[in-house]
Amino acid sequence: MSKKKICVVVGSRANYSSIKSAMRAIQQHPALELQLIVAASAVLDRYGSVVNLIEKDGFIPHARVTMLIEGETPSTMAKSTGLGLLELPTLFEQLAPEVVLTVGDRFETMATTLAAAYMNIPVAHTMGGEVSGTIDESIRHAVTKFAHIHFPASEGARERIIKLGERPEHVHMVGCPRIDLVAEILKNPIANIFDRLFDDGVGQRFSIDEPFALISQHPVTTEYGDGEAQITMTLEAVRDQGLAAVVLWPNADAGSDDISRGIRKWRERKLDDRMHFFKNLPIDVYVNLMHSTACLVGNSSSGIREGAYIGTPVVNIGSRQNMRDRGDNVIEVSYDKREISRAIAKQVEHGRYAMNPIYGDGTAGPKIANVLAAERVAVQKCITY
Amino acid sequence: MSKKKICVVVGSRANYSSIKSAMRAIQQHPALELQLIVAASAVLDRYGSVVNLIEKDGFIPHARVTMLIEGETPSTMAKSTGLGLLELPTLFEQLAPEVVLTVGDRFETMATTLAAAYMNIPVAHTMGGEVSGTIDESIRHAVTKFAHIHFPASEGARERIIKLGERPEHVHMVGCPRIDLVAEILKNPIANIFDRLFDDGVGQRFSIDEPFALISQHPVTTEYGDGEAQITMTLEAVRDQGLAAVVLWPNADAGSDDISRGIRKWRERKLDDRMHFFKNLPIDVYVNLMHSTACLVGNSSSGIREGAYIGTPVVNIGSRQNMRDRGDNVIEVSYDKREISRAIAKQVEHGRYAMNPIYGDGTAGPKIANVLAAERVAVQKCITY
Amino acid sequence: MSKKKICVVVGSRANYSSIKSAMRAIQQHPALELQLIVAASAVLDRYGSVVNLIEKDGFIPHARVTMLIEGETPSTMAKSTGLGLLELPTLFEQLAPEVVLTVGDRFETMATTLAAAYMNIPVAHTMGGEVSGTIDESIRHAVTKFAHIHFPASEGARERIIKLGERPEHVHMVGCPRIDLVAEILKNPIANIFDRLFDDGVGQRFSIDEPFALISQHPVTTEYGDGEAQITMTLEAVRDQGLAAVVLWPNADAGSDDISRGIRKWRERKLDDRMHFFKNLPIDVYVNLMHSTACLVGNSSSGIREGAYIGTPVVNIGSRQNMRDRGDNVIEVSYDKREISRAIAKQVEHGRYAMNPIYGDGTAGPKIANVLAAERVAVQKCITY
Amino acid sequence: MSKKKICVVVGSRANYSSIKSAMRAIQQHPALELQLIVAASAVLDRYGSVVNLIEKDGFIPHARVTMLIEGETPSTMAKSTGLGLLELPTLFEQLAPEVVLTVGDRFETMATTLAAAYMNIPVAHTMGGEVSGTIDESIRHAVTKFAHIHFPASEGARERIIKLGERPEHVHMVGCPRIDLVAEILKNPIANIFDRLFDDGVGQRFSIDEPFALISQHPVTTEYGDGEAQITMTLEAVRDQGLAAVVLWPNADAGSDDISRGIRKWRERKLDDRMHFFKNLPIDVYVNLMHSTACLVGNSSSGIREGAYIGTPVVNIGSRQNMRDRGDNVIEVSYDKREISRAIAKQVEHGRYAMNPIYGDGTAGPKIANVLAAERVAVQKCITY
Repeated sequence: MSKKKICVVVGSRANYSSIKSAMRAIQQHPALELQLIVAASAVLDRYGSVVNLIEKDGFIPHARVTMLIEGETPSTMAKSTGLGLLELPTLFEQLAPEVVLTVGDRFETMATTLAAAYMNIPVAHTMGGEVSGTIDESIRHAVTKFAHIHFPASEGARERIIKLGERPEHVHMVGCPRIDLVAEILKNPIANIFDRLFDDGVGQRFSIDEPFALISQHPVTTEYGDGEAQITMTLEAVRDQGLAAVVLWPNADAGSDDISRGIRKWRERKLDDRMHFFKNLPIDVYVNLMHSTACLVGNSSSGIREGAYIGTPVVNIGSRQNMRDRGDNVIEVSYDKREISRAIAKQVEHGRYAMNPIYGDGTAGPKIANVLAAERVAVQKCITY
Repeated sequence: MSKKKICVVVGSRANYSSIKSAMRAIQQHPALELQLIVAASAVLDRYGSVVNLIEKDGFIPHARVTMLIEGETPSTMAKSTGLGLLELPTLFEQLAPEVVLTVGDRFETMATTLAAAYMNIPVAHTMGGEVSGTIDESIRHAVTKFAHIHFPASEGARERIIKLGERPEHVHMVGCPRIDLVAEILKNPIANIFDRLFDDGVGQRFSIDEPFALISQHPVTTEYGDGEAQITMTLEAVRDQGLAAVVLWPNADAGSDDISRGIRKWRERKLDDRMHFFKNLPIDVYVNLMHSTACLVGNSSSGIREGAYIGTPVVNIGSRQNMRDRGDNVIEVSYDKREISRAIAKQVEHGRYAMNPIYGDGTAGPKIANVLAAERVAVQKCITY
Repeated sequence: MSKKKICVVVGSRANYSSIKSAMRAIQQHPALELQLIVAASAVLDRYGSVVNLIEKDGFIPHARVTMLIEGETPSTMAKSTGLGLLELPTLFEQLAPEVVLTVGDRFETMATTLAAAYMNIPVAHTMGGEVSGTIDESIRHAVTKFAHIHFPASEGARERIIKLGERPEHVHMVGCPRIDLVAEILKNPIANIFDRLFDDGVGQRFSIDEPFALISQHPVTTEYGDGEAQITMTLEAVRDQGLAAVVLWPNADAGSDDISRGIRKWRERKLDDRMHFFKNLPIDVYVNLMHSTACLVGNSSSGIREGAYIGTPVVNIGSRQNMRDRGDNVIEVSYDKREISRAIAKQVEHGRYAMNPIYGDGTAGPKIANVLAAERVAVQKCITY
Repeated sequence: MSKKKICVVVGSRANYSSIKSAMRAIQQHPALELQLIVAASAVLDRYGSVVNLIEKDGFIPHARVTMLIEGETPSTMAKSTGLGLLELPTLFEQLAPEVVLTVGDRFETMATTLAAAYMNIPVAHTMGGEVSGTIDESIRHAVTKFAHIHFPASEGARERIIKLGERPEHVHMVGCPRIDLVAEILKNPIANIFDRLFDDGVGQRFSIDEPFALISQHPVTTEYGDGEAQITMTLEAVRDQGLAAVVLWPNADAGSDDISRGIRKWRERKLDDRMHFFKNLPIDVYVNLMHSTACLVGNSSSGIREGAYIGTPVVNIGSRQNMRDRGDNVIEVSYDKREISRAIAKQVEHGRYAMNPIYGDGTAGPKIANVLAAERVAVQKCITY
């Protein structure tokens, strides 16, 4: 019997972390064949050549698609989606997948989804039904309206997908595949995390005896132009609380240039030599940092999702994670330096939270593979109301 | 005070008919400035150079965008959307519109919507919330999830948009702007419609004393490959009922080549010399034909929408108009020649129906312009549940 | 020892005829591996699905690339080239060819050439160094300036390539691979060519006892807009000479819509029922027609190239084949109906010419394969003066 | 009388410097109208937002086209050209220029040239006929084969264009418009150049009393992958000679990531605190530096072109400027550290050279405008032999 062909399009480092455990489970499933296309920032040096990591993990890309247009403005994000739509159809015709599995809510996701749906290939979608800020909010729900099989990561998300008019029998609450990775990583904590960190990164060591903040702040596409002020405020708040910090550069959304400029200026002015900046951290290092940080500050979804499972104290700033289901570990604040400072102080005092499995228990990947093997869907969709 | 700039992207003849009365109302509104981009099949000779018609109507296109990739397969539909996404951002940057107004559910609509939404330009959308077959079903609801202002054409559609999680205060039931055109056209019926018809078109006259069918059948993208058999069945059923016919060539969706092939073969075999085939009919001719036909056969949305207002007897075949709100004037049948024949016979016997304004009363255009002038929206969307 | 990978990009029916014998020879060469991409009009139904023919001939496409943008205007020709440039790099990365072999002077050729040359893949080029009208004239020489290995089809072409500053040791006069096909076809002439013709095509038979013209007229891109008048004049001249005719529809260059319109109107007016129109003829049928026609009229390069080998009497109209090396079999005329008529009359009287091997003797394919296997080139080019 | 519309497409900072004086002259010419499109790296923050500078200089862009695909690999260079080909036709249709004026030999130039030539718009080309390394060598000559009016910058270039089969009456030796800028800048030397430099840039001051090197090294696309080693060798050679240095980051060609990596590592290791690195220097600063530097080291064309006029001592490394016409001021070396060191020492000892006007005398811009106003060309090109 021939295997059912499942094509995954990976477009970024975050994408890969969010789907890796499902890819592994598909690869190992006797009734499934994994097909892989690597695209967008995942093929670029500048974002750490995720494609090499993917190959080292034993996955073989059918094609590598450069499709990011320089500029990281709202308009280049639209154009990059266009480029994806030009290239993916030819590749899907080569591969003839029976299902295309797409991840989350980034603009590459939209390209993958449209190409597959227009070509009458059933679309399976992870992480639908969540609520957030930025254009991701619209992309995510639009992808849901094209998708045939849904893999929400939380119970709230499952309910929302059904309210959007999707058939309940095709909505499978499996948890988030990223939690699968987190669970695996935390089984073997990295002992000397800071040694490893300062080997790879740029900057000078700081003492590990003191508490440190983890800062991860991304642009909000609908607040295009404000990024420099936003990141500067965060850096100042952390410094004011006397914390050392590990700071991540932003991802490739529209507006990331603004945040990068803020970080560059901070560094050049040498405003705090206990702050260290990293372009990319391996996921295992990052999870270990989330496990030992005094407080994660910024607007990364990881604080809310992985943070719930790990128990990381989080200060979440602004609208980017608006209304995402969350646990007790998160304090919400607006772009106000004093508010941010106070929240950091409170989290440092509280320390680690108890584990909360609202985003899954570490078994999402195999669940996804099993559903993909069993589920039959009609290509023609119809809203339920 | 500077006028609010509203940009409309017209991508096809049908698109134009669906938005023309709103364009006129925007053009005439003291607080609004109309910006126009003409694209896709609307700029092509092969589809009747709709752009020339648009200019004759007094609208001035800022740019003409060729973006249809030859082939009319599902994959070229995806690529054409990609092309739109590459070109529209540059044009939107030139125009800097305050709202982009987009129409319906075709693939060009998706390109327009994504380009505008990614660029943080509020999107207004007509004809959302309806239910149909083909990929249009998914496109329409996905566009709703990106749109900031909604102009549904029927009450059922309005309710569906709200169920999709859109804020009720931004959902305005205005009716369908196509009905505005229909109302205007029927005020001055064309006296000698057949003389005019046979002047413009290809084929030989037939006697106007006898009843005639109007056939308009388009491809169903999710049934790609079946078009030739489908149109042939329709043509046979009409012939079996002894009706003369005016037959329209299909639009440019994936699969239209199949239907065209069926029509070409029929013509070449000269199976019925009382059947006459037209690539494009001016909207006024078409509406007059809908007013005098014994029965409209096929799967055009016009039977359901304009048909309700005009009272046209309609035999609607297959899944393409699935679940669209409809009046008494429509008999639903499947792809079955005997079923189609029987339904035609029944409609011929019944004759014209009474007017039913479920898709509007002919005032949609001015209503849309007024809302656009008054409404303020936040760029950042958020689902209501 | 691993085989040297040679990638051919086939973009049209004419392209395929021009490279088929070389493809066959590469496929059969012990040191070479053939890679194939089929693109542009060669993948479209509307142009006869050449890709199916290619597969029937035993070649396996790695990918099929739709890249023609509808409209056939000068601007869509530019955009189609752009589409090729977007898709080919990803496919070349998949295939990693050691040489890309490109054909002639069409806009697809430009895309193939640029993609390969920019990617540091050596380019081999057939049919360079010739002189003609239309934009092809510029494309051909520009491709020569990117190509590393040259396969001119005539001695004059060879000399011109060297004058263009290319190194003589990389310029190999091999003849035209199309002549290889012609030679093979004429070994087994089709007995009842008209029976076969009227089985496949549209139209009614005409008596084969009388002499017939073969008409093949393509748009001249630099005379965009004149096509309708030009083809009409040709059809009238042939009718005035009392000849029956086999007429071919034009190829997909900018301006082909004009010529098609002229043909359509002629047909609709039923101006001569002994004229028969064909979208595509199989190459074997076409060569047999060239062998039996009283006169080939129009501006097809086949009259000059294959015509020289076959001895076809040719009336060549206008600038399209300007300055191409030619034999005695061609009479040159301008767009003047009386001049065309007189030249036709003269050719009908003369009858078939003797064979002239200026474009090759039927062994181009194997010669090309042998050079490709042996030749080593530096990627960095440098003009010789 | 309506003015003749001349459209210039500016794609990079270097492009702009190379055409600015011609733009100014066109703008001021009574018979000409200047149209401007700004594209590629010239619209990007990352390359210093040249478009803002252009606007400050009083030119108004009709459109800004983002078209660089991230990655800076050979394949993204091909794709970026493709993007240009997709966007420019729509803009050329908006503008309807009578001549498109294109600059030099970068990949944007190819897109501009193809779009215009395919659309039957006459192409004027500056800086054709020169000889160099990298893919530029092929691009330059290919553009010449599409261009209708040629503006070579040197006598050798003029002769080469004519040898390439272009009509002598359309080849106008005008000199290089960059020299116009240089001449103007040197009329008013910047007094305190280093003060200004260290105000704008990153890094710490060095004493201006000592001699300094100016380093400008770009990737060679046909040596893709070697850039890091190449720049490192140059930096070491300069340090070994005991020179302070002003170092420029590379331009956006394929391979620039390699060179950037080399520079980044050098900086991070703090191998010489008298070396200062700049992303972009205003042209006036750069020219003043060329005027005061002890030696320009690298492979920038400026050393050969502007260097001849200014008299700058130059050490030119490797193949990038292969065979470009040059004066006495240049010493050629290969990628060999000792050779580079020795040549630097020799140039430091020699000091400034006498002015040599082989690339023009500072009047290229007005000459170009005058030719454009007067010259009439046929769209249909034909090689002269």
